[in-house]
Amino acid sequence: MGICSVPLEKSYRLLNHGPTVMVSAKNDYIVDVMAASWVCVLDIFPAKVTAVLDKKSFTRQLIEQSQKFAIQIPIAKQAEQVIKVGTQSYTDNSDKLTDSHIELFYQDNFDVPLVKGCAAWLICRLIPEQSNQQNYDLFIGEVIGAWADDRMFDRGHWKFDQLSDEMKTLHYIAGNQFYITGKGLIARD
Amino acid sequence: MGICSVPLEKSYRLLNHGPTVMVSAKNDYIVDVMAASWVCVLDIFPAKVTAVLDKKSFTRQLIEQSQKFAIQIPIAKQAEQVIKVGTQSYTDNSDKLTDSHIELFYQDNFDVPLVKGCAAWLICRLIPEQSNQQNYDLFIGEVIGAWADDRMFDRGHWKFDQLSDEMKTLHYIAGNQFYITGKGLIARD
Repeated sequence: MGICSVPLEKSYRLLNHGPTVMVSAKNDYIVDVMAASWVCVLDIFPAKVTAVLDKKSFTRQLIEQSQKFAIQIPIAKQAEQVIKVGTQSYTDNSDKLTDSHIELFYQDNFDVPLVKGCAAWLICRLIPEQSNQQNYDLFIGEVIGAWADDRMFDRGHWKFDQLSDEMKTLHYIAGNQFYITGKGLIARD
Repeated sequence: MGICSVPLEKSYRLLNHGPTVMVSAKNDYIVDVMAASWVCVLDIFPAKVTAVLDKKSFTRQLIEQSQKFAIQIPIAKQAEQVIKVGTQSYTDNSDKLTDSHIELFYQDNFDVPLVKGCAAWLICRLIPEQSNQQNYDLFIGEVIGAWADDRMFDRGHWKFDQLSDEMKTLHYIAGNQFYITGKGLIARD
């Protein structure tokens, strides 16, 4: 088992199935992590994503300051963590990450915090678009690094059909309710 | 069984779990349907969505002309239809919809074609944003009507845990490969 680099032009496959994600960012020594369902692929290459980040979110401020953020794809085992970082704000509780049992790590040459235990991670450079950010809370990022836990995603493919339920990714509905990713299906041509 | 109206402020729940969708539009008497994975909630109320629509897509032209489109959420039984409308273009084959066994219907007072057999439908009014459309192929729509098949979504909630696999929604990866929506999971607070 290991965390392996994912080619940037394959990184859209990490998000294509619409999983719930956690968004993280850092400015100086302040780190925050939030939950987000409204993160979506925008382009394959150069790989780009959109993320909707509410004006009340402290993580958004860190992204505006540092111009960088990470998107990580949690697994079912982390559902409680996702709810915790999604319902608490750093503004009210600066111990939010500790209280949510979030452990961070870094990839070499990238000063953006990543959450341990996820299935995959994408580090993005903000492409500033003030009108989208102010009018729609819509942020655009270019993916500049991508990695996956090779137990879940290997050589460009998810391995959900070989995984226990707690290792599958999450799809958020509302409240505390998710669905996990289900069975594979190959359509006929 | 019936197709029921979904309150607009609950319509985000139809897309929140990240399903693959089909996008449809009509101008004069020309109708087209395409597959799309990059459709995402942008706001809860007024309900808004983003959709990435390639410049080569004929459906995109119809949307630019009519300023309206529909997003529908197909079920696993329709996977072959999704691949067919996603790989053929109306430009090359004006019988694309017939060849893909797509049947259309309309809701009263909305002149936007909807695909039969889906789990849910959202009709959107384009919010024109030329810079996003030209630079990023990114379209923003305001949801002005939403409906669901009450076997799959009823009173604000998906019912996947009570459905057979072929009635669950689809999450696209690449090629002909999807995952269907899996088991429900309620996180602890």
